[in-house]
Amino acid sequence: MTDKLEQLKKIFEEVSDLGSTAGLLGWDQQTYMPIGGGDARGQQLATIGKLAHQKATSEEVGKLLDELKQEFAGAESSSDDAAMIRVAARDYDKAVRVPPEFVAEQAIVTTKAYEAWAEARSKSDFSIFLPHLEKVVELVRKYISFFPPADHPYDTLLDDYEPGMKTADVQAIFDGLRTKQVELIKAIAARPQVNDKFLHKKYIESKVWDFSAEVTRKFGFDWSRGRMDKAPHPFESSFSVNDVRITNRFEPGNPLATLFSAMHESGHAMYEQGINPDYERTSLAHGTSLAIHESQSRMWENLVGRSLPFWEFFYPQLRKIFPSQLEGVGLKNFYKGINKVEPSLIRVNADEATYNLHIMLRLELEIALMEGSLAVKDLPAAWNARMQEYLGIVPPNDRLGVLQDVHWSSGLMGYFPTYTLGNLISAQLWEKIQADIPNVEEQIEAGNFAELLAWLRSNIHRHGAKFEPEVLVKRVTGSAITPEPYLRYLNKKYSEIYEL
Amino acid sequence: MTDKLEQLKKIFEEVSDLGSTAGLLGWDQQTYMPIGGGDARGQQLATIGKLAHQKATSEEVGKLLDELKQEFAGAESSSDDAAMIRVAARDYDKAVRVPPEFVAEQAIVTTKAYEAWAEARSKSDFSIFLPHLEKVVELVRKYISFFPPADHPYDTLLDDYEPGMKTADVQAIFDGLRTKQVELIKAIAARPQVNDKFLHKKYIESKVWDFSAEVTRKFGFDWSRGRMDKAPHPFESSFSVNDVRITNRFEPGNPLATLFSAMHESGHAMYEQGINPDYERTSLAHGTSLAIHESQSRMWENLVGRSLPFWEFFYPQLRKIFPSQLEGVGLKNFYKGINKVEPSLIRVNADEATYNLHIMLRLELEIALMEGSLAVKDLPAAWNARMQEYLGIVPPNDRLGVLQDVHWSSGLMGYFPTYTLGNLISAQLWEKIQADIPNVEEQIEAGNFAELLAWLRSNIHRHGAKFEPEVLVKRVTGSAITPEPYLRYLNKKYSEIYEL
Repeated sequence: MTDKLEQLKKIFEEVSDLGSTAGLLGWDQQTYMPIGGGDARGQQLATIGKLAHQKATSEEVGKLLDELKQEFAGAESSSDDAAMIRVAARDYDKAVRVPPEFVAEQAIVTTKAYEAWAEARSKSDFSIFLPHLEKVVELVRKYISFFPPADHPYDTLLDDYEPGMKTADVQAIFDGLRTKQVELIKAIAARPQVNDKFLHKKYIESKVWDFSAEVTRKFGFDWSRGRMDKAPHPFESSFSVNDVRITNRFEPGNPLATLFSAMHESGHAMYEQGINPDYERTSLAHGTSLAIHESQSRMWENLVGRSLPFWEFFYPQLRKIFPSQLEGVGLKNFYKGINKVEPSLIRVNADEATYNLHIMLRLELEIALMEGSLAVKDLPAAWNARMQEYLGIVPPNDRLGVLQDVHWSSGLMGYFPTYTLGNLISAQLWEKIQADIPNVEEQIEAGNFAELLAWLRSNIHRHGAKFEPEVLVKRVTGSAITPEPYLRYLNKKYSEIYEL
Repeated sequence: MTDKLEQLKKIFEEVSDLGSTAGLLGWDQQTYMPIGGGDARGQQLATIGKLAHQKATSEEVGKLLDELKQEFAGAESSSDDAAMIRVAARDYDKAVRVPPEFVAEQAIVTTKAYEAWAEARSKSDFSIFLPHLEKVVELVRKYISFFPPADHPYDTLLDDYEPGMKTADVQAIFDGLRTKQVELIKAIAARPQVNDKFLHKKYIESKVWDFSAEVTRKFGFDWSRGRMDKAPHPFESSFSVNDVRITNRFEPGNPLATLFSAMHESGHAMYEQGINPDYERTSLAHGTSLAIHESQSRMWENLVGRSLPFWEFFYPQLRKIFPSQLEGVGLKNFYKGINKVEPSLIRVNADEATYNLHIMLRLELEIALMEGSLAVKDLPAAWNARMQEYLGIVPPNDRLGVLQDVHWSSGLMGYFPTYTLGNLISAQLWEKIQADIPNVEEQIEAGNFAELLAWLRSNIHRHGAKFEPEVLVKRVTGSAITPEPYLRYLNKKYSEIYEL
């Protein structure tokens, strides 16, 4: 290892420790922190964030990166060090472009916007949120202006979550998906609806929780290097490849959501637990993009956790735990019930067949906002028009419509499409897995997930951020990101369930 | 506020945030961290510690402190700013005297010594620990050498925990205590022993836990600014005046220890919760010394929590929760049982009457080690001789003797006497409290602790580190730290219990 590389790595170890520490401050804030601790926690997070930013953007780092980029210019694509330098240089370049005063202004604007959003949503009154969202959109445009002009202004936003991906690519992928998914939903709507009444009975929280934990254990989530705690929202948080935590919640009105959230978050967590331990405290020690991350969580939640083979194994256990709730519900009917398709207003409650349409709507509105072809004040109308077009339903109010998601209040634009890309990639990987492990479904039926996890480990997890998402997908599946496998998956699954 | 003071305060806010953050990393390590997270946590703690040290010992801080010391030289003793500068200057002076290489060496030596101690204790073989302890003692001597010569080399160690206190003072105080405490124990030993069999029955953990939490709530521990979690050892940890946490454990063989630990730790916690909020993120935002801290924890645990008035109120509740365990045990017998005096080998299990003798033994050995009049290899014999002299019992092996405490393996010398000083101060404060609140015992009998807590808040807690411990005790009680009140307290209490 060169001296310069060693120097850079030493600095990044400290940056990484600061990042992990901020992660713990945030995790604790959502899980155990007493309510009184909020103000002090904000100050602690600001201080740690500032120190991490100072360290990561120092002149010394810039100089080292410049020199190392030249030194490693001809390195092979398999070189970990070259990838580490590339990712570090990319992060550095982004960080130094954005002035600290902008970051401070953004923090203030989005804090107020978040509060306004919460009030607007609870009162279902978009006008409360409007002036704040206008400021946020202005700031997002200003953020874009710090970067060299791209093919499309939205490219700059997207690149923060999906390094290397272009707006035009996403649009092309989504174009191949939209019509066919709308068609599928219409075909399903013409069939008799499945029965999911059993999902809305009373389930004892601790029993659901324990069963959920047991499922993640069976999947391969390593509880000696992770845990699951209660929080207002389910999320995954990693402080080291050996300390990856998930959170979960229990909603009495939707008791089994806890189980599917556990599967989802443990999918994220197993990705982080599977990263090459040699990457610890480097720029490669995290999943490579939100879409690849989402491909892992959705795979375990949907392709595994909502599949018939999975429930062949687990349903007898679940029935033993909840005999009265599931009385008279056979395996097939349970399977159908948890896969019920129904156009609905709220994205986070959407089923696999309708979910992507919620995302497409958001992507189109975000692009229009950035292009300037849509004014913030016209968002509610534009939202409702697309809901009618894609899902055939219109929100009765803005709370159930344009005000439902927190993302925009925090300035998170460019984020939504990663959810759908994750869905698509999960199915694309799944076809490759089926080719490589022909009896994967039989293994799942036997409650055996070891070979599946080993495949994900060696093909996806261990690489961390080494490969950009599109490079990784191509490397593993031989093709670019495409909607075909996901459409095949949906069509097969729902043709059986709804006898299309 | 002067510009310079403002500059210093800004720096200390960041130092404080780093300290609180390190505190959370440590708390999490003991409570929720999965076992695999240990190595990464060590690195995170080292990085945060290093950054805090760099920030606190920068030339800028030194220069500001020099200038501010002059500026505030004539300030009144009531000035918060002057106290803040004085404490910050003291901390700075200590921190810059110790070279970073020494700190690094110490970390390595004590890590190995800790491991050797754990092995030695489990095998009850002092020879395993001996070479490591010799190195630790050498390092402690080296540490002392970084400081200007004091009246006694032990002064330098003591000053880290009890700012301003001298070895000669502690020796004089302990001399006034030793003989009388030995006499008391002999008198008690001549009387029939009380019955505490009920303490060793089976109690349901969750019920003991809930009752313990309820008692701390009644005391005035603010659960909206604190919490209690499970950990291998009970401790208190503060990340802000508004986020002060305690930990606790349950030992089936000693089930009610959980309750007394909760009282003890909540005593520490109420001290931290009661600090003037204006001191947040300054050098004053913590208890002023370990002894003053211990005076608070011991007061709530012993003077309140093991008193008859306390149990007049709480015993009916406890009996309702544990009717079978406490069947036939009247209030008086319960009170006697939880105050049983019996010379025993292990310090942490010692009762109020024998506890201080365990401490005196350690203090004398530590002083002899520092003076060079005792060789490390002769510690076991010296230990056993003193156990015979003070408590009339000799450990059958070193596990139950010289190897029982973790402190020395970590280089913590000068720490033990603060436990006894805390006991003494608690009784000294209590006499003042009884004078100021004549019906305090009746209030406790009625389960009302508000006036007691308010007294502690205004006399002790709110000042944080503003007054050095001896100054504070004098300020509140009008006298220096003295063993008389504690002896009066012990004699009165045990004369009644053992009918001396």
